[in-house]
Amino acid sequence: MDLENEKNDIGRDSIALWVLNPPEPPCMLYRILKNLKEAQLGVTLFSLKHQNSPKIVFTFLQALFPIFASFKNYNVHKFKSDVLGGLILAIFAIPQAMANASLANMSPEYGLYTSIVPPLVYALISSSREIVIGPATVDSLLLSSMIQTLKDPIHDSIAYTQLVLTATFFTGVFQVAFGFFRFGFLVDYLSDATMVGFLQAVAIGIVLQQLKGLFGIVNFTSKSDLFSVIKSLWTSYKNKSKWHPCNFIIGFSFLSFILFTRLLGRRKKKLVWLSHIAPILSFIISSAIAYKVNVHELKIEDYKIEVLGPIKGGSLNPNSINQLQLDSNGKYLGPLIKIGLTVAIISTTQCVAVGRLFASLRGYKIDPNREVLSLGIMNIIGSFTSCYVGSGSIARTAVNYNAGSQTMVSSIVMALTVLLSIKFLTGLLYFTPKAMLAAIILSAVPGLIDIKKVYDIWKVDKLDFLACSGAFLGVLFLSVPMGLAIGTMISFAKILLISIQPSIAVFGRIPGSEAFGDVEQYPMAINMPGVLVVSVKSAWLCFTNASPIRERIERWVIDGEDENSKGERSIKVVIIDTSSLVSIDTAGIASLVELNQNLTLRGVTLSIANPRWQVIHKLRLANFVSEIGGRVFLSVGEAIDAILAAKMEA
Amino acid sequence: MDLENEKNDIGRDSIALWVLNPPEPPCMLYRILKNLKEAQLGVTLFSLKHQNSPKIVFTFLQALFPIFASFKNYNVHKFKSDVLGGLILAIFAIPQAMANASLANMSPEYGLYTSIVPPLVYALISSSREIVIGPATVDSLLLSSMIQTLKDPIHDSIAYTQLVLTATFFTGVFQVAFGFFRFGFLVDYLSDATMVGFLQAVAIGIVLQQLKGLFGIVNFTSKSDLFSVIKSLWTSYKNKSKWHPCNFIIGFSFLSFILFTRLLGRRKKKLVWLSHIAPILSFIISSAIAYKVNVHELKIEDYKIEVLGPIKGGSLNPNSINQLQLDSNGKYLGPLIKIGLTVAIISTTQCVAVGRLFASLRGYKIDPNREVLSLGIMNIIGSFTSCYVGSGSIARTAVNYNAGSQTMVSSIVMALTVLLSIKFLTGLLYFTPKAMLAAIILSAVPGLIDIKKVYDIWKVDKLDFLACSGAFLGVLFLSVPMGLAIGTMISFAKILLISIQPSIAVFGRIPGSEAFGDVEQYPMAINMPGVLVVSVKSAWLCFTNASPIRERIERWVIDGEDENSKGERSIKVVIIDTSSLVSIDTAGIASLVELNQNLTLRGVTLSIANPRWQVIHKLRLANFVSEIGGRVFLSVGEAIDAILAAKMEA
Repeated sequence: MDLENEKNDIGRDSIALWVLNPPEPPCMLYRILKNLKEAQLGVTLFSLKHQNSPKIVFTFLQALFPIFASFKNYNVHKFKSDVLGGLILAIFAIPQAMANASLANMSPEYGLYTSIVPPLVYALISSSREIVIGPATVDSLLLSSMIQTLKDPIHDSIAYTQLVLTATFFTGVFQVAFGFFRFGFLVDYLSDATMVGFLQAVAIGIVLQQLKGLFGIVNFTSKSDLFSVIKSLWTSYKNKSKWHPCNFIIGFSFLSFILFTRLLGRRKKKLVWLSHIAPILSFIISSAIAYKVNVHELKIEDYKIEVLGPIKGGSLNPNSINQLQLDSNGKYLGPLIKIGLTVAIISTTQCVAVGRLFASLRGYKIDPNREVLSLGIMNIIGSFTSCYVGSGSIARTAVNYNAGSQTMVSSIVMALTVLLSIKFLTGLLYFTPKAMLAAIILSAVPGLIDIKKVYDIWKVDKLDFLACSGAFLGVLFLSVPMGLAIGTMISFAKILLISIQPSIAVFGRIPGSEAFGDVEQYPMAINMPGVLVVSVKSAWLCFTNASPIRERIERWVIDGEDENSKGERSIKVVIIDTSSLVSIDTAGIASLVELNQNLTLRGVTLSIANPRWQVIHKLRLANFVSEIGGRVFLSVGEAIDAILAAKMEA
Repeated sequence: MDLENEKNDIGRDSIALWVLNPPEPPCMLYRILKNLKEAQLGVTLFSLKHQNSPKIVFTFLQALFPIFASFKNYNVHKFKSDVLGGLILAIFAIPQAMANASLANMSPEYGLYTSIVPPLVYALISSSREIVIGPATVDSLLLSSMIQTLKDPIHDSIAYTQLVLTATFFTGVFQVAFGFFRFGFLVDYLSDATMVGFLQAVAIGIVLQQLKGLFGIVNFTSKSDLFSVIKSLWTSYKNKSKWHPCNFIIGFSFLSFILFTRLLGRRKKKLVWLSHIAPILSFIISSAIAYKVNVHELKIEDYKIEVLGPIKGGSLNPNSINQLQLDSNGKYLGPLIKIGLTVAIISTTQCVAVGRLFASLRGYKIDPNREVLSLGIMNIIGSFTSCYVGSGSIARTAVNYNAGSQTMVSSIVMALTVLLSIKFLTGLLYFTPKAMLAAIILSAVPGLIDIKKVYDIWKVDKLDFLACSGAFLGVLFLSVPMGLAIGTMISFAKILLISIQPSIAVFGRIPGSEAFGDVEQYPMAINMPGVLVVSVKSAWLCFTNASPIRERIERWVIDGEDENSKGERSIKVVIIDTSSLVSIDTAGIASLVELNQNLTLRGVTLSIANPRWQVIHKLRLANFVSEIGGRVFLSVGEAIDAILAAKMEA
């Protein structure tokens, strides 16, 4: 290596000048704005620059409706795949949509409505190629748990439905706002640990809620917190007469059947179609059994199977604009806006995560802001057409992906198939057992529970685990927004606490290398006699830690020894490695100035090594560089070389 | 240098093992607790370990009452200095104490009471050797501005005084709690920028308030916000009859006199005594003038000088335990606790700063927790003996230091001198002009205003300036606690925002050195063909920035070029320098896993360089190290050497 020659050519002085005179770094606000802007990747709605004019119409259409981009290389083969995928999707989606609607305490047809308009709208405007929209399990539980505190879904189901549609409208409005102001990055601000804790609580909530359907319990609490549900279960348990074992048998059998086929599909890829059709099979078989039991053979009250009963069908999504409760004097407006915000955050976070997952499987990027905007437009249009909150469910998207669909055309095929089924088949749903719907909902629970991830969080970071537990317990015992707020607050407090606590390490040279490292991390590191190399481990040297850090360095110098430096005395040189400092504030600079003064009084010289751009810039602005006689170096090694060179000269 | 030999002896493999297998780092909670504990420096009340038994009684006394430590080498010479210093201090403190009491809307004798008991208590138990306790300007303004919203000090002065004493009690309770639970470090959490903004607002508040005394305005608002005061001034201006020019002349002349002597003392060290006696001189001369004007010569209403009038004196600090409003049903209890907390934070922050400043001038350390505890005990005892909040004022402490006092004995001498003066001299205070007190208060304003510091903050950090302005405007237009809360929140939000935003830089080798640096900071840095070296500039790779950072690295690899890497294509190696990462969370690790998978698909290898202790520990826990085939290196240079070595072998 000709490094030595290069060193001689360039000389230490010009390197020192490079360190001391970097270009002006961009202003902090500019950097933050740039980062916000960069959060927007991929196609932008209005990014029509650098285009030839003939293509501009197509590009414009493509920017407005990304589905057009898929048609570029579209062919009969792809179309066949999409139609087949769409049909499989519809078979999987119809029972799931009805089950989720019943989880949301809505009449089942609302689940079907939500599987028609939202997927159609989304297929046209989204940048994803895989996400399949429909009612999602988590959103459904969220809506029912929050809105049933405002209106009782059993006794006043019309008013309850109106509130759900209004919450859907606000969810859409918030999503449009997030997307429009490029706040798509905000979904990243719900920490993973919080999300995991939240999902575990949701899983428990779903199980508790569905025990009602599974056991066929009639008088059940409409509250969703743990205490009320357990109390209600206990009451039912004591009055055994109210149980309906037939319901339990049906529910449990079909839950086992669905889970078994899924396991089978995971083991043998060829049998994955079985798990796709398991819900519809359960649907048909259980309805047939219920028909037999309730109508023909056993009319005894004890063996009655709870069924859906008459369902309003045969029509397209009815107009629901006049159902929205947007009267500004209405007492529900405030709570509904809050619910809309909560659902928007959760629903968006999940959908973007699903989109990112499948986009990365296919090797392209989705644009979070575009997705959020699309979800918002879709939910607003949905709330006008009797749909409640739609989102990209991971189960449905996985079915679509496995079925080999190529483009969003499969979503369109699915929506049209659901449309036909609602037109002609709702009459057949009379005898659908409620326990079977509970089984379909419960089959989503294993996808939410993730003990391994919780354990990983515990293993890697105890404070993250605290955030996870905070969200879990908060959602379970207080409310969803409270739980999310607790988790998020712990996550941020953790980051802040660790970034700004006074943390400093003694550095030594790693044997056989020119690098320096923490002597606690590398116990074999070598200290140089008379030189104290310290490194600030916190991210900031600021008002919270500047004084303690300065005092600790001074104490080390005065003591001349500490637990790590193996008893060397009479320190003449202190080198502060600032490579991990993201930035420094006025209090940090003031403490460096004071440190330098106190050290100078003791005949100790202070040097700074490896300052980042912002740090050297601020040190120069505050004239600290001239105060320490320009002793700022590229690395600890160069600082020590300079000291040795100065000694040689002296 | 025999580095090459050392390198050959040790070998790359064992260095790699050192990087990969560091000792277990201490658990994060342990580190945080350790830092909290380390915040306590110096003598601890109960640190009686490692002591010989004969000395233990003295050591115990010394730990309980640090003043005993001063007596070790105490002699007649030091005693003389202390007595002289104490007398000078009393001469300076008496007018200032009365002025501050009138700023707090209290009768002047309360200022004198507060200059007796609190300094005595503090002298016995504090670890400082310089701080002189008494009523402080900032605390006085704080108390009057917050308590006069509860009770009118003019029409119900007895009830107002009771509330001030109760607030003093709560201030003491909070300070004891801070000190006892070792929360002394909390005073560091009020950012400098916030404090500077707050003090500028206080300075303006004092000026506006004192215009009343200076001009001798009679009907003045008792509110302290900007609007009310300016409105009140305007009203007085329109009704000229209410002005009393004599007051203004007296106030303005003596303010000029005091400021001039201070300037003189700063220019010529020998004349510093002049600035110490200027207040008492102003006192005597102005009282004589007022006596002449009001009693003997000009009894015309227009030329009347507003004087203090009859003052209750001649007695020691009266017992005031039964004056405290601690009834839990009282409607003032809540607000008073809040006021106590605010005053405790501000008063403690200022006093610890003063203590640190003078301790560092004398070359010793004070123990923040001990100081806070001492202040708390002192204020609680003070509230029982008709004293309001006492603190270590910087002006009084500077007088003490300049007068050559050696120990806390000077404070005791001062307190006894004030005691004598209250016993015998209060009768003479009848003719003290209020305008003269206003002049003394106003003379403290130049010490609060610090335009240079504000400008420095603006120059170094625009977001710190935002915190400073937020505190300033909040205190001026809303309230003191709101202003402080705004400033603190902006300070923390800034740190959080910059620590967690997605920020990443391309690194290149600095010519003539083995170090690598940001190519934007060092435009002459050299890129190695086929290698992309990136460095995470944020303090965390966590849920907020993991996805954007991963996406940006992938984009750079896919593009094969970016604005900085000068058009090199076909990147085969990505090295991530993690030296500035304080820590990483599960989301950060997940994004590294995903990045590694995506890069491997493209035939690009990923290496990690220079991980800190926590980072390598977490990466190992999450099995990421084995996932990237152990490609973790001590530095970017070593990573590139390893790549070159692997190429040579291939």
